[in-house]
Amino acid sequence: MLSVDHFADQINEAISDIKYPDSPAGLYEPIHYTLEGGGKRLRPVLLLACCHFVGGKSEDAVNQALGIELFHNFTLLHDDVMDRADIRRGRPTVHRRWNDSTAILSGDAMLTMATSFVVAGAGSKIGQIIGLFNKTAMEIYEGQQFDMDFENRRDVSVGDYIEMIRLKTSVLIGCACKMGAVMGGATEETQQALYDYGINLGLAFQLRDDYLDTYGDPLTFGKEIGGDIVNNKKTWLLINAMNSDMSEKLKKVINQSPTRGDKIEGVKSIYAELGLPGKCRELISKYVADAIEVINEADLNESGKRFLTEIALSTIERDN
Amino acid sequence: MLSVDHFADQINEAISDIKYPDSPAGLYEPIHYTLEGGGKRLRPVLLLACCHFVGGKSEDAVNQALGIELFHNFTLLHDDVMDRADIRRGRPTVHRRWNDSTAILSGDAMLTMATSFVVAGAGSKIGQIIGLFNKTAMEIYEGQQFDMDFENRRDVSVGDYIEMIRLKTSVLIGCACKMGAVMGGATEETQQALYDYGINLGLAFQLRDDYLDTYGDPLTFGKEIGGDIVNNKKTWLLINAMNSDMSEKLKKVINQSPTRGDKIEGVKSIYAELGLPGKCRELISKYVADAIEVINEADLNESGKRFLTEIALSTIERDN
Repeated sequence: MLSVDHFADQINEAISDIKYPDSPAGLYEPIHYTLEGGGKRLRPVLLLACCHFVGGKSEDAVNQALGIELFHNFTLLHDDVMDRADIRRGRPTVHRRWNDSTAILSGDAMLTMATSFVVAGAGSKIGQIIGLFNKTAMEIYEGQQFDMDFENRRDVSVGDYIEMIRLKTSVLIGCACKMGAVMGGATEETQQALYDYGINLGLAFQLRDDYLDTYGDPLTFGKEIGGDIVNNKKTWLLINAMNSDMSEKLKKVINQSPTRGDKIEGVKSIYAELGLPGKCRELISKYVADAIEVINEADLNESGKRFLTEIALSTIERDN
Repeated sequence: MLSVDHFADQINEAISDIKYPDSPAGLYEPIHYTLEGGGKRLRPVLLLACCHFVGGKSEDAVNQALGIELFHNFTLLHDDVMDRADIRRGRPTVHRRWNDSTAILSGDAMLTMATSFVVAGAGSKIGQIIGLFNKTAMEIYEGQQFDMDFENRRDVSVGDYIEMIRLKTSVLIGCACKMGAVMGGATEETQQALYDYGINLGLAFQLRDDYLDTYGDPLTFGKEIGGDIVNNKKTWLLINAMNSDMSEKLKKVINQSPTRGDKIEGVKSIYAELGLPGKCRELISKYVADAIEVINEADLNESGKRFLTEIALSTIERDN
């Protein structure tokens, strides 16, 4: 049976094969740098796998997989400028290594390159592919805007938060699955099922990210634990605590902790008292279960169901 | 005969008719603000006119015209962040009125919206249209990168400069003309002729912009005269002076002028001694003549030839 590594190799090879013009280096070097930074390649792997498991050839969807990975990296690049993030995947972000202008312009070029890749070889499916891609892109910008808006809002509900991460994270995973299905010639029903799978997987994935930022193992997680707490980042955990009857105590801990460590420990003890770590894990499991249910009801062969179920299950326990 | 105003009205109406989602306002308000800022609408007017004059219906190319105008405004929006420009068309730029993050994200959304518009209703031409659009976009990013690179280079030749403005400005005008021709069902030969017309027109247009920044009438030009000189902007005029036998004197004037006014007058007197204002006007006229020659040899009816010739001629004398 084909593994995640098989599809990851396929996409990594295609990424190494991208030819960049020599000049202007200031435009193309940051793109090369960004794509070489690694990452899980989750989205292109899902795209290639979905194409394969609906009966297509994954080779025929490599351009689309590249396009989605380029798009994902473009959003990270621009988000890092907006969030003033210094480090990404253990290396300086583009705006730190070069400057803001370089990050903005290289990101723009990555978006256009992404668009070129998703339509390449799409043949008669080009209209559907570009429509899906552009719709998804707009939703992701909306998600990023909501995320930034949340920083200055005190009334964010858990529902608002789930809708924000659906837009900011899940729709691209859903889009990757659906685009693979479209390229593989799946029926509309199967396309939709794989989209829904991706949405549920994406929600689980992002909630696990939130969880690991507070409860992860610093050795395997790859970045410092507690960053979200220190930065008052409105995650599922914080929003639940803010909307609980411990909100006054939370405010005090946030505003009066003498050190970074005190703040992290203080907030974590409130989360613990509210039972939030367990509830968060339960919610992740629920979205994973929803993803698997969709797959089980979809018109896919057994190996496809097994592959996608395993990816979904791995989200529950992933530690980086 | 149809006038520029006719096509400008058509595009302005279409711009007013764009429906924006209510939320998130932080994403869509800056886009609305940018598109309502006016401007000449040169590119969409050319696109609609070229579609009409090759025998198509301009109504059938309104989406493509909107896409090109949105793309143009996206590049201005992001360029203004990179250049730290405060004012555009008499109003605060988006990053000044809101902030950098808003300008980056709204610009990204405008690029995706532009892509959606250029493919809308393109039918069987969709592959050619998106290919032309993406290729042009990449060239424009390259042009912007070269422009930024020039700031730190002392060895920019006049040829380098012309190539930079071809990429940064002309190719979008060429693209607009060609896209109109494609939508109107023109032959490949006519598509290419209109593209070449746009390239020559764009070069003339940008050189006239450079010229007006130094020699324009402040009342009609709409911004302060001499900004390029004050900012040591590497324009056609400055590059020629830097590469002349007056380069040492120029350096002194640039580095030692006690006031802004002294610097402008000092640099202008060097330009005058070198005969650069006249040479610049001659070069503009040459590109306009080239544009008109291409049109005269193209397979277009008399009213089309007259319309495009008049637009080209108006570039020679335009004062804003």
